[in-house]
Amino acid sequence: MLNEKVWNQVEKLREEGALVHNITNYVTVNDCANMILASGASPIMADAIEEVEEIISICSGLNLNIGTLNERTIKSMLVAGKKANELKKPVVLDPVGAGASSLRTKTANQLIEEVKFRVIRGNISEIKTLCKGQGNTKGVDADSEDEVTTESLANTVKQLQSFAKEKDCIIVVTGEKDIIVTGESAYIVENGHRFMSRVTGTGCMLSALLTSFISRWGIEEEEVLLSVLGAMTMMGIAGEMAYEKVEKERAGNASYRNYIIDAICSMSKEEYMERVKVSLYEHN
Amino acid sequence: MLNEKVWNQVEKLREEGALVHNITNYVTVNDCANMILASGASPIMADAIEEVEEIISICSGLNLNIGTLNERTIKSMLVAGKKANELKKPVVLDPVGAGASSLRTKTANQLIEEVKFRVIRGNISEIKTLCKGQGNTKGVDADSEDEVTTESLANTVKQLQSFAKEKDCIIVVTGEKDIIVTGESAYIVENGHRFMSRVTGTGCMLSALLTSFISRWGIEEEEVLLSVLGAMTMMGIAGEMAYEKVEKERAGNASYRNYIIDAICSMSKEEYMERVKVSLYEHN
Amino acid sequence: MLNEKVWNQVEKLREEGALVHNITNYVTVNDCANMILASGASPIMADAIEEVEEIISICSGLNLNIGTLNERTIKSMLVAGKKANELKKPVVLDPVGAGASSLRTKTANQLIEEVKFRVIRGNISEIKTLCKGQGNTKGVDADSEDEVTTESLANTVKQLQSFAKEKDCIIVVTGEKDIIVTGESAYIVENGHRFMSRVTGTGCMLSALLTSFISRWGIEEEEVLLSVLGAMTMMGIAGEMAYEKVEKERAGNASYRNYIIDAICSMSKEEYMERVKVSLYEHN
Repeated sequence: MLNEKVWNQVEKLREEGALVHNITNYVTVNDCANMILASGASPIMADAIEEVEEIISICSGLNLNIGTLNERTIKSMLVAGKKANELKKPVVLDPVGAGASSLRTKTANQLIEEVKFRVIRGNISEIKTLCKGQGNTKGVDADSEDEVTTESLANTVKQLQSFAKEKDCIIVVTGEKDIIVTGESAYIVENGHRFMSRVTGTGCMLSALLTSFISRWGIEEEEVLLSVLGAMTMMGIAGEMAYEKVEKERAGNASYRNYIIDAICSMSKEEYMERVKVSLYEHN
Repeated sequence: MLNEKVWNQVEKLREEGALVHNITNYVTVNDCANMILASGASPIMADAIEEVEEIISICSGLNLNIGTLNERTIKSMLVAGKKANELKKPVVLDPVGAGASSLRTKTANQLIEEVKFRVIRGNISEIKTLCKGQGNTKGVDADSEDEVTTESLANTVKQLQSFAKEKDCIIVVTGEKDIIVTGESAYIVENGHRFMSRVTGTGCMLSALLTSFISRWGIEEEEVLLSVLGAMTMMGIAGEMAYEKVEKERAGNASYRNYIIDAICSMSKEEYMERVKVSLYEHN
Repeated sequence: MLNEKVWNQVEKLREEGALVHNITNYVTVNDCANMILASGASPIMADAIEEVEEIISICSGLNLNIGTLNERTIKSMLVAGKKANELKKPVVLDPVGAGASSLRTKTANQLIEEVKFRVIRGNISEIKTLCKGQGNTKGVDADSEDEVTTESLANTVKQLQSFAKEKDCIIVVTGEKDIIVTGESAYIVENGHRFMSRVTGTGCMLSALLTSFISRWGIEEEEVLLSVLGAMTMMGIAGEMAYEKVEKERAGNASYRNYIIDAICSMSKEEYMERVKVSLYEHN
C-alpha cells in the first residue's frame, strides 16, 4: 500500500516533470544533471549572483550543494534560497563536508538560518554537525564514530526528529539504512548497496533526485513526504540493480556510476516493486 | 554527391586534426573535451583572462559557451573572441539559456556585437531570442511555443537567413529537424533521436564538435559549410547508433552519453552513408 | 621480485586507504575523484582559500593540478601546498599545459619554488618547460619536437635526474615509455596504450592516482618510490585491459575512460603480474 503510493510519485514525476535549479559543486555536477534528466525532470545550473533570482523564478525547485563552495557561490546560494522561499518553491540542502572545515560548517549553518529548507540530506556526520553545531566529519565521508547501530538507532531518530521539528523540514540521513524523519514520523529505507560509496557523488546525485521529486510541477503538499520516499527507494534500488550488472561484467566504479543513472531512467514498476524496502519506524 | 563531400570533411578532420580552445560551462566540459578528442581534434580549456589570448594564439579555433557564465568568464570570453577575430581563427557561439535570464540574453547579445562568429548554434528558443532580442526560453530547453512545425518551417528559415546575412555567419538551430542556414542557402539534417534530449549537454557537445570541424588545420574557406554539415550529420547519426545500443542493453541516459561519443570516435564510412539524411532546403 | 614489491603497494593502498585533497581543474575532476576511489582511497576537492589549510590537515596528501588555473585557485594552491609541507604531507604537482601560456609556466615555476613536491608528473614538454624555464608545449599535449626517442633517452634521463636531484623529488614523465627518476635511480614503465591519449584527463587521473599511492596512511619513507611505480604500472595495465574491452565492443573513447577506471578498481594480482613491465634503467 505504501509501496504503491510511493511508486505513484515516480510515475507522476515522469509524466509531469520538474525544472530544477542547481547551485552545486563542479565535481559531480554532470552526474547530477543526468540524474535529474533520468528521473523525468530537467536541470539548469546557474550560480551567477546576477541571474539566480530570475532562474529560480522559472524553475520549480532549488538544489543547494556546498561541495566546492567559495565566497562567490555562497552569496549566490543565499540569494537564490531566499528568493525560492519568497516564491514558495521547495529548497533542498546537501551540506557536503559540514564538519570537515569551519567554512563548510559555518556556511551550512548560515544557510539553515537564513533559508527555509524543505529537505536537508547528508550522511550522519554532516547532519550531526548541523544538529550540534560541530561534528566529526572526516573529509566528505561519514566518520565511523558517528555510525548508526541497531542500539543507537532509536536515539538517533529522536534527535533527528527534534531537529526536523525545530527546522520544520524533512531530514534525510543516508547510510547503511537510510533514515527519513519529519517532526511527526520516521521511515527507514533498506535499499542500496555499499559499493555506492565507491562512486563519487552518489550523495549529490541523490540530493538532486530528491529535488526533482519534491519539485514536480503540480505536486500537492501531502505528497511531499511520499515523493521523498520515492527518491530514496529509487536510488537504493538503482544501486542494487546497477551492482548486479557490474558484478556480471566484472566492471568497476566508473561503469557503476553510469548504471545507477541508467537504472533510474529505465526502472519499471515490476523491478521497483520486487525490491522496495521502505517502512514506517515506530518507537517502542 | 553531397553526402560524399560531407563525409570527406570527417576524414580530413581525423587526418589533419584541430586544436580547439574552449571557454565553456563546468557542467558538460568533460563530455565536450572527449567529444573533441573523439572527432580527431584536441581540446584545451582555459578561461583565465591572463592567458586566453595566448591560448587562442596556439589553437585553430574557439568555442564559447555561456552555460555557466559569470562575471569573470564573460570578460575572458570577450577578450578571447576578439583575439580570435584578430588572428582570423573561427569562433563558435553556444548561447545556452539565452532568454532564460537577462544576464544570459545580455551576454549573448554583447558577444554577438563585439565578436564576429563563424557559427552560432542553439535551440530555436535561444536563437529566436538572439534574433529578436528577447525570447521564451524555459531553462535551457526550447520552449514548446517556439517549436518549428511543417507550417512554420519556411518562415523560420527566412528569419534565420536574414539573421545569418546580417551577422555574416552560419546559424544552426537544433531540434527534431536541424536547420543550417547561411545568408544564401539552407540545409536540413534529419538525423538524430529524441532520446538525445535526455542527456545533459548534447547541445554543448555538438557545438564543441562543430568547432572541431570548422577549426581543422588547413580547412579551405569553401569547406566551412560542408564541415558544419559534417558535424551535424555525424552527431545525429551517433545519436541513432547509440540509441540502438541503449535499447539492446536496456540501458539509460548515462550510458547513452558514452555511446554517442563512442560512435563519433569509431563511425565508419559505411555506417555514415547508410544513415545520413542531409538535404538542401528550397523555398517554394 | 620488483614486481611483487610493487604489487604489494597496490594491496596496501586497498587495505589502508588514503584521503586525498585535490585542487584540480574542472574538466577532469570527476574522473580524478572516481580514480582515487577506484584505488581504495577517498578524494576531497576543496579550493576555497578560507578552508584549504583545514582540509589538508585532515587529509593524507595533496594533489595540485593547474589545468584550469585562475587567480583565485592559484592562491589556494600556494597556501595549501605550504601547509602540506609544514604538516609533512606529500604533495604532487601536475603542471598541465606548462609552456602553453606564460600564466601556466609562471605558476608552475612559482609552485615549484614555494612548495616542496614529492612527485612532479607531466608529459615531456611540460617537464622540459620546468627544467629549462620555457618549452614547446602545444596545448596540453606533448610537442612532437620534444619526443623521447631511443637515441635521446639516455640524455633525457640524465637531465631529469639532475632536475630531480635539484628539487629533491621524484620526476615522472609519461609518454610511450614512462620515465620515473629520483636523484639516484631511474625506472622505465612500458605498460599503457596509445589510445589513452584520446581520453581527456588520463594524465590528470594518473596524477590523482599517484597522490593516492604516496599518501597511503602508514606508508613508510622507503615505500614511496615503490608506490609511485605501483601507480604507474597499474595505470598502464588498466589502459591495456580497457583497450581490449573497447576493441571487443567496438566502443570508443568515452567508454574507454570508464573501463580504465573500472580496471583500477577490479584488477587482480594475476592480471597485474601477467602484464607488468617495469625495469630499472641503467646508464651504460
